[in-house]
Amino acid sequence: MKNTRFDNTGKRILNFSAGPGLMPATVLATAAAEMSTFSQGHSLMELSHRSAPFEKLLEETEVSFRRLLNIPSNYKVLFMQGGATLQFSCIALNLCAGANAGTKADYIVTGAWSQKGHEEAVRLLGSDRVNLVVNTKSSKHNGDIPPLSTWNFSDKQSFVFYCDNETVHGVEFGSKFPFHAIAKDVPIVCDMSSSILSQPVDVSKFGLIFAGAQKNMGPAGVTVVIVREDLLVASYKYPQPFPLMLDYSTYATSHSMHNTPPTYPIYLCGLVFKWLETKIGGLIEMEKINAAKAACLYEAIENSNGFYSCPVKKDYRSRMNVTFLVKGDFEKEFLAEAEKNGMIQLAGHRSVGGVRASLYNAMPLDGVQALVSFMKEFASARF
Amino acid sequence: MKNTRFDNTGKRILNFSAGPGLMPATVLATAAAEMSTFSQGHSLMELSHRSAPFEKLLEETEVSFRRLLNIPSNYKVLFMQGGATLQFSCIALNLCAGANAGTKADYIVTGAWSQKGHEEAVRLLGSDRVNLVVNTKSSKHNGDIPPLSTWNFSDKQSFVFYCDNETVHGVEFGSKFPFHAIAKDVPIVCDMSSSILSQPVDVSKFGLIFAGAQKNMGPAGVTVVIVREDLLVASYKYPQPFPLMLDYSTYATSHSMHNTPPTYPIYLCGLVFKWLETKIGGLIEMEKINAAKAACLYEAIENSNGFYSCPVKKDYRSRMNVTFLVKGDFEKEFLAEAEKNGMIQLAGHRSVGGVRASLYNAMPLDGVQALVSFMKEFASARF
Repeated sequence: MKNTRFDNTGKRILNFSAGPGLMPATVLATAAAEMSTFSQGHSLMELSHRSAPFEKLLEETEVSFRRLLNIPSNYKVLFMQGGATLQFSCIALNLCAGANAGTKADYIVTGAWSQKGHEEAVRLLGSDRVNLVVNTKSSKHNGDIPPLSTWNFSDKQSFVFYCDNETVHGVEFGSKFPFHAIAKDVPIVCDMSSSILSQPVDVSKFGLIFAGAQKNMGPAGVTVVIVREDLLVASYKYPQPFPLMLDYSTYATSHSMHNTPPTYPIYLCGLVFKWLETKIGGLIEMEKINAAKAACLYEAIENSNGFYSCPVKKDYRSRMNVTFLVKGDFEKEFLAEAEKNGMIQLAGHRSVGGVRASLYNAMPLDGVQALVSFMKEFASARF
Repeated sequence: MKNTRFDNTGKRILNFSAGPGLMPATVLATAAAEMSTFSQGHSLMELSHRSAPFEKLLEETEVSFRRLLNIPSNYKVLFMQGGATLQFSCIALNLCAGANAGTKADYIVTGAWSQKGHEEAVRLLGSDRVNLVVNTKSSKHNGDIPPLSTWNFSDKQSFVFYCDNETVHGVEFGSKFPFHAIAKDVPIVCDMSSSILSQPVDVSKFGLIFAGAQKNMGPAGVTVVIVREDLLVASYKYPQPFPLMLDYSTYATSHSMHNTPPTYPIYLCGLVFKWLETKIGGLIEMEKINAAKAACLYEAIENSNGFYSCPVKKDYRSRMNVTFLVKGDFEKEFLAEAEKNGMIQLAGHRSVGGVRASLYNAMPLDGVQALVSFMKEFASARF
């Protein structure tokens, strides 16, 4: 996997955007070629969603996604719109266990995104139906996650919500999430927007997984939901009517075709899934590449004698979004010099500052190595 | 404007899909060319929505859209997701005039889409807050719209809803909508999904206009809303909290950037707007072309000595979706022969049957003329 890109002066450009992010170049080449040849001289985007070619494509896309994540047959895959932010509302409305007395939605807050999810649940359900299990806000969401013994789970849980990878703060749970601490009959709901398809996941541990496409799957505009079928019943849902297009059942019963789905973004996701299956060789291989990329960058930070520093505690550092600080007043200069050297979109999220290098699936190892070389040169000239 | 397409045997293909529908070929050519050149060797879809190139593109896209429709400065343009079906919920929740005693949302139902809008409003607001002004269901939504004197408007209206062009039934209001019958201070809310940008519109007559992109603007996955600023206040909104991403104010205050918008679909809409401005010459020119196309097809139907017949009353026939029936048992054969001759997606909506030719902006006049020639030949061989 090379994915090399050049600007019009011939300089290699490395795009570390946190999302929408880098796509595999071969996917874009296929999309460009098929713009006038997908079906009878037309682009996929010009076909009715009820046409045979699109229905076939939707089916194949779902099958490929299921194969990649080894999704059990008792889970539905839904193609929705609106991003993770709309999912925060959907989850509160679909899974709050209706009017069941005393149930609470348990939220684990370890960064900006789980915090937003919690806020929306409180807004829609009221604070008496929502519980904060743990919140790392006081440590600026730096991955200093308190010991499990201090986590404040509810007695009667409607679901437990967490974000697998916090894109803004660079904090990732991965396999360290304490699944064992949650009763088997309580649905675990996970925002996997920025880590999905970056490594294998045991889907059977979850009630629901959702992910906006624009980091590891495709372009912005499609949101994929994996939901266990038994949760799609009235007893889990908010007791008053809520918008039809926010009800998971609307999608589950129509194969995501109640109304027109975002056909072209889905097509591009399908091409990315195919790339993962055929060019990368599946998620076990993808995991190895991603681990190597993250190790390369974190090692450079650790070995910089403090010129660079990662604010996130070691146990929960993200493989996808590596956040770090530059010593003294050099941050602005670092970002400007990086850009001059073709390394773009490295500024941290506007709410936290610093530097952030997003190493999604499409970023090749040699791109990270190039960044590390630049970092070493930059540091040695200023130490 | 030619927009000719050929399949891999060299046969010309004419795509009459009701949506997602035909795009201008020049737009697709630009999109294909820019797949690896939009910005520093990247596609637009790979850029952060907070990056300078995307923010500039979003701004230019909105400016172009405003210019085309001559949108007054006291209207906001919002880029949303979820299609018209999600808008049905948004409208009920944002414009129901809160808890103002006695106000009712007035719905004018002339086809499948306004019917769905009405159903969702009843579901969310309850039947005591929603009123059916008129409903043509008993005449199978055939455009037999009863005289205005029989319309049952509410005394205290929160808004009046109608669908400008009913895609399934082929019924269009256009300038025949009785704006004069509605008090100036009552917001008129219009679903323009399948007629927007097909002709000039006096936006100042409306409180809110919305349209899914996938007929006349771009690919499925983006929904454009034009809303008068003074309606974005709490007193119009549903009194209980509703999902953040369904609140128009969320988009109005963030320039549609509260979360990641569907960047690539917006980019394609921008290319279509540019095509309308530079290749067509604006909506007055587009209107002439669309009028000529519709006239050509309706004349062929009228002059077929009853072999073809249009079920819709003359005054309200759609310029965008021409629905017609084929005499006797010839419908199935007609559709099969048309397909053999490269004229695809002509079957009527599955709920009504018959034939439907969608003549959106990107369909050239010579495409309609080719259809008419085929229709004449098909009829003469069987009369």
